[in-house]
Amino acid sequence: MSVAGPPQDARPLWGKRREATHGGNHSPFSFPVRVYYEDTDAAGVVYYANYLKFMERARTEWLAALGFPLAAFEREHGVAFVVHRAEIDFLAPARLNDILDVTVEAVDRGASRLVTAQEVRRGDEPITRARIALACVDTARWKPARMPKPLQYALEAAI
Amino acid sequence: MSVAGPPQDARPLWGKRREATHGGNHSPFSFPVRVYYEDTDAAGVVYYANYLKFMERARTEWLAALGFPLAAFEREHGVAFVVHRAEIDFLAPARLNDILDVTVEAVDRGASRLVTAQEVRRGDEPITRARIALACVDTARWKPARMPKPLQYALEAAI
Amino acid sequence: MSVAGPPQDARPLWGKRREATHGGNHSPFSFPVRVYYEDTDAAGVVYYANYLKFMERARTEWLAALGFPLAAFEREHGVAFVVHRAEIDFLAPARLNDILDVTVEAVDRGASRLVTAQEVRRGDEPITRARIALACVDTARWKPARMPKPLQYALEAAI
Amino acid sequence: MSVAGPPQDARPLWGKRREATHGGNHSPFSFPVRVYYEDTDAAGVVYYANYLKFMERARTEWLAALGFPLAAFEREHGVAFVVHRAEIDFLAPARLNDILDVTVEAVDRGASRLVTAQEVRRGDEPITRARIALACVDTARWKPARMPKPLQYALEAAI
Repeated sequence: MSVAGPPQDARPLWGKRREATHGGNHSPFSFPVRVYYEDTDAAGVVYYANYLKFMERARTEWLAALGFPLAAFEREHGVAFVVHRAEIDFLAPARLNDILDVTVEAVDRGASRLVTAQEVRRGDEPITRARIALACVDTARWKPARMPKPLQYALEAAI
Repeated sequence: MSVAGPPQDARPLWGKRREATHGGNHSPFSFPVRVYYEDTDAAGVVYYANYLKFMERARTEWLAALGFPLAAFEREHGVAFVVHRAEIDFLAPARLNDILDVTVEAVDRGASRLVTAQEVRRGDEPITRARIALACVDTARWKPARMPKPLQYALEAAI
Repeated sequence: MSVAGPPQDARPLWGKRREATHGGNHSPFSFPVRVYYEDTDAAGVVYYANYLKFMERARTEWLAALGFPLAAFEREHGVAFVVHRAEIDFLAPARLNDILDVTVEAVDRGASRLVTAQEVRRGDEPITRARIALACVDTARWKPARMPKPLQYALEAAI
Repeated sequence: MSVAGPPQDARPLWGKRREATHGGNHSPFSFPVRVYYEDTDAAGVVYYANYLKFMERARTEWLAALGFPLAAFEREHGVAFVVHRAEIDFLAPARLNDILDVTVEAVDRGASRLVTAQEVRRGDEPITRARIALACVDTARWKPARMPKPLQYALEAAI
């Protein structure tokens, strides 16, 4: 799935998600997270920004499962993934000691960008749902960079 | 500015922002934040989820400036603001020791919901930009609740 | 092992550690933690306060392994563990993507207090080492409370 | 105040604090912190690790007030302060919306090390109290380094 034209930040990332989820016959990558005190706030629920931490943990484990452990990736290629847009719906509160599943699916990809659709679920109940647009950047100059070819191929197969 | 119809989560919150910013003749509420080590990550920049912390600090100070200190608000009225959708564009990285300004503007409001447009800036340079949709909830039942009237009036005047 | 006399905050908790570690013939409870971006800072290493998060995760999993899952514990007994003193030595930096092991040993215990010795290790290399003194408190009044008897027995067996 | 002999990690750092506090006729540097949701946990109080964040904010502001802004310090001298030991007493819980004062005093100093005594207070009430031992390290090699002379003089005057 190639991307042509200008960056699409002004358009809702969310719209394509359903097709991506239902159209494929593979289940998304999933990573478990336990909710500890550090994740919660005085309202008794997970603090809203912390779902973004959970989602990044899952993306990191997903990339590692595809054969791209983060530290090696950056050391060998001098590139990193940087989030440049996030859209998150907070659907229900998660609470202390919950075991959550965090899913990752690549739903769009270009030579230097990647969009993931991610969910945090407690059993069958969706807790948060997000679209995260990432850019591959050259860490020395902090400029967009092409993803290494092997990662491009791996993502191609994953979408 | 009243809100009719169903929840608008599926529509981009972002679209209306420009009018709100340029149409008014007031400048938005602004709150300064210094970047400490705790805010940064190994890529040498502010960790993406932490901008949501900065934005909540600014919302809290803005509500306090409107006469609604958070703790009193919850104790007296039994209600709290919960984020139910966030859209964030990460435009440029902030770094250790930067002094940032975080702005808040109310751009939409209903009896139990509020949408803020927020920016994190370093001088004139935009760093992140977000739309945050908040719901006023009854903290005992975690259900939508009408905002207290004085807050509704204060927000009416602020939009 | 009962505790008599005044709170011992003024004395070094650290001193007894070696006996506890070497005297027993059991290995301590251990819990793995992967280092993500969220854990690191702009110096390229794990941010110092975050080791306390890792240590609490390990304590939570250790209590769960002893049969005392945190949420149930608080709901049924109305008590929680609160840290009242921590001594931490930061021996070496952990870095992005490291897999760490976090150990927990109960080294002292009273009716309403517990002291854990904890280490964060990367393979055989110690990264941080801590003594954490916890108090069991009644969460309604935030006052010291006796631990539930079954937990006292479980800890007795674990020391 | 010079430091002779081996590193003093095995000895309680706490013991000397009172003299340092009462012996001088200057009041310690103090920095205000507001407690936001991000700082609290599901027990309704400030999460224990977050006091270390508050203390580092105060140390950073204190160094800046002495003329050593952190980023410039590292850029010009290639050195940073790293915590190598912390002792913290958690005396009372802070809560959402509290305004806290965080103090910093240098209580011991060598050519490459610094010990601060710090308190978090709510008005006159002590909330946490800590001794933090820092090492000045060369950030390229992560080895102890002498503090730049101007900082040594500034600290000399401050103790």
